[in-house]
Amino acid sequence: MKHFLGIGAIDDIHSWIREARDLKKDPAAFYDLGKNKTLGLLFFNNSLRTRMSTQKAAFNLGLNVLVMNVGQDGWSLEFEDNVIMNGESAEHIKEAAGVLGQYCDLIGVRAFAGLEDKEQDEKDRILNALATYCGVPVINMEGTLGHPLQALADAITIAEHKIVERPKVVLSWAPHPRALPHAVPHSFIRMTHQIDADLVITHPEGYELDPRVTQNTAIEYDQEKALEGADFVYVKNWSSYTQYGKILSQDSNWMMTREKLSAAYFMHCLPLRRNVVASGEVLEGNRSLVMQQANNRTYAVQLVLKKLLGS
Amino acid sequence: MKHFLGIGAIDDIHSWIREARDLKKDPAAFYDLGKNKTLGLLFFNNSLRTRMSTQKAAFNLGLNVLVMNVGQDGWSLEFEDNVIMNGESAEHIKEAAGVLGQYCDLIGVRAFAGLEDKEQDEKDRILNALATYCGVPVINMEGTLGHPLQALADAITIAEHKIVERPKVVLSWAPHPRALPHAVPHSFIRMTHQIDADLVITHPEGYELDPRVTQNTAIEYDQEKALEGADFVYVKNWSSYTQYGKILSQDSNWMMTREKLSAAYFMHCLPLRRNVVASGEVLEGNRSLVMQQANNRTYAVQLVLKKLLGS
Amino acid sequence: MKHFLGIGAIDDIHSWIREARDLKKDPAAFYDLGKNKTLGLLFFNNSLRTRMSTQKAAFNLGLNVLVMNVGQDGWSLEFEDNVIMNGESAEHIKEAAGVLGQYCDLIGVRAFAGLEDKEQDEKDRILNALATYCGVPVINMEGTLGHPLQALADAITIAEHKIVERPKVVLSWAPHPRALPHAVPHSFIRMTHQIDADLVITHPEGYELDPRVTQNTAIEYDQEKALEGADFVYVKNWSSYTQYGKILSQDSNWMMTREKLSAAYFMHCLPLRRNVVASGEVLEGNRSLVMQQANNRTYAVQLVLKKLLGS
Repeated sequence: MKHFLGIGAIDDIHSWIREARDLKKDPAAFYDLGKNKTLGLLFFNNSLRTRMSTQKAAFNLGLNVLVMNVGQDGWSLEFEDNVIMNGESAEHIKEAAGVLGQYCDLIGVRAFAGLEDKEQDEKDRILNALATYCGVPVINMEGTLGHPLQALADAITIAEHKIVERPKVVLSWAPHPRALPHAVPHSFIRMTHQIDADLVITHPEGYELDPRVTQNTAIEYDQEKALEGADFVYVKNWSSYTQYGKILSQDSNWMMTREKLSAAYFMHCLPLRRNVVASGEVLEGNRSLVMQQANNRTYAVQLVLKKLLGS
Repeated sequence: MKHFLGIGAIDDIHSWIREARDLKKDPAAFYDLGKNKTLGLLFFNNSLRTRMSTQKAAFNLGLNVLVMNVGQDGWSLEFEDNVIMNGESAEHIKEAAGVLGQYCDLIGVRAFAGLEDKEQDEKDRILNALATYCGVPVINMEGTLGHPLQALADAITIAEHKIVERPKVVLSWAPHPRALPHAVPHSFIRMTHQIDADLVITHPEGYELDPRVTQNTAIEYDQEKALEGADFVYVKNWSSYTQYGKILSQDSNWMMTREKLSAAYFMHCLPLRRNVVASGEVLEGNRSLVMQQANNRTYAVQLVLKKLLGS
Repeated sequence: MKHFLGIGAIDDIHSWIREARDLKKDPAAFYDLGKNKTLGLLFFNNSLRTRMSTQKAAFNLGLNVLVMNVGQDGWSLEFEDNVIMNGESAEHIKEAAGVLGQYCDLIGVRAFAGLEDKEQDEKDRILNALATYCGVPVINMEGTLGHPLQALADAITIAEHKIVERPKVVLSWAPHPRALPHAVPHSFIRMTHQIDADLVITHPEGYELDPRVTQNTAIEYDQEKALEGADFVYVKNWSSYTQYGKILSQDSNWMMTREKLSAAYFMHCLPLRRNVVASGEVLEGNRSLVMQQANNRTYAVQLVLKKLLGS
């Protein structure tokens, strides 16, 4: 593995899950692996869980960490090749990436979709340009196309809690007052295609996700029907993909409740708006796995760092 | 000690002072105590001394440190239990605290009083909710009710410089162009009640502090009279507590001068506005302990961290 | 060496260059030198390369690092001695410096010229006041008068690539849409006066630099003539020094091109606006040393830290 840009970088998810669970049992086991090496973290957007779990994982591996809050510093980058840079952008991504690659042995980057221009967003320009030009392994800490560290943590969480060989997993859309990107549901779907699971996606009409990702996954517009017999229910809002970035519904009937959840496990990547996305009792109930998911973020990224340091 | 939320967490201030002074002589003596452990620092407000001294103390104990400038990231939290979170707040404190507690072994938090709604401020919601929900020890880096790390550093400084068994300590209000909170004077008073000292508080009428804190401490409206025979003079502005957050006086006659100070030691927690709160010659004079106080911040918080790591 | 405030702190640049190149071969050779010591970095202005290379160098020396983004925190300092501080400034530099010096064993500071008041800028007040009052060694991470860490990195880069004993070095002004400060060209000139090199400065009329810095260096207004037979061409924009901070020309004829560069090496401190300051093919061409310069920033500052730790 050269970079960790998406779920596609995972060659064998079953062995990755096993290895991550081993790390969780003994997080400091590879403390010498990162000695005298530096992980750079570039945040073009805010972050709590990703920022903290990634630093925590780096500490566990003895890595030095450099954090750059790029958004706050207003560091505007140019991506086009033959442009005359007399506007806002002070630096071309080629030089920025090259320089970063000289100071860091690994680079993590977060740069969200803007949700205005799908074609532009889906180039994942910052992430891909860094991977092309920086010369060191790059880790996707959420871009437009995916949030694979979250999906890997989710895979670990499902493996820890499943009691049947092939659980039924439902990805259930939820209302939200803001337009949210598609990285989390898309990576979750890609990941679910690799584990032993039967995935059903449920959402209001108009919220169809990228067919290149969903492929032949069952889509059920009737949430009640979709949830029948579910073992894990992954709740998540996303804005319309076809009417890119638009909010088509805020129908509170799609909120997850204890009645709907029944005996299934509840999953969400957090942060979660209570009584909008899911009720407080779902979130705090004994079937809620949100804390376990957040905790597994550390071991997901620690495994990725370990693999990239080893390669 | 489960948390360090206020002066009340100090079981025996005399032994704490002794132990802090021992740490000061050999700051790296417990370097292995923090090995593979992580301290998270959450700043909802700006910080210089607290930020730097706490990180320094953590380095001395071999702790990893994660710093989150929460204010800058605009991370708006919900505290109410049954609210429908369709407004500004993206995350409930329960989840935020729970997640933080999984990434950190200790959490320090700074969240100032807003000085608009006393009842609301005095709930110290962020601090207390973290302590309730995060599952790991929480350290108060200044909330509404107190700034106990400052008071502990002040106690160490007084112990280092007192030449009589029971010194006279005067807490003297000073003018200031901005409305300042009550955390520092309140914690200073609570601390002084625990050490061997005779405390007198002096301020203009209308600046009476919380009677639940001052209790039966002598209050003297005549500054000159209050200062007579003082061994230590702690100068500090605060806004009105009764007319909550209001500035009732900017009377420059209350500024500390060399004449008023006489032979007493001068103390202030810094930052200090020269020639408003105290004259430059007081601040730079040979009776000024402000640098010693700032230096003792490191050993105060290092002692707290050490105790919480040990427990 | 007590501080590293400018090129003047370098006693023997030839031995410094040798020592830096030795560090580059074995960056972790002095990992124990910084043990239990803390480097504080104060950024009053944005930084990418300086921030990352300095932290990287500190890691290589086993130093703890405290980063303060002072600009963002809006920490306004007072510098005048007898002022009544009832305005914006909450703290006097004397106390701020004294406190910082107690938490840190070394302090780096970046505070750019404002480019409005030359006399005021050239006092380099923040840098000099820190050096005067903090009591520990101070490192200039770019002030008004100079950016000596950049110039030292440039000296290392020239030494690594020169093939004649005494190369011809040309400092060539370039257009830029924003008014830029003079720290980089001034330090570059001072540095070049110390190495074995023939320096020619070329710029449009009106862009004459400080004569106290340029001294008897050849100034040639005809860029083509200046570039004849150059071994190294250092391209850089600066605003007018005589008409302080003004942009007098944006003449694109001054942009560096492959034709003009000919066989010389191309140098620039980055960030660089492509096709404004230099063409993309110059920047990416095989005579470009910009990546090497950026890389040498680490070893330049590591050498300075090492010398200050040792002294």
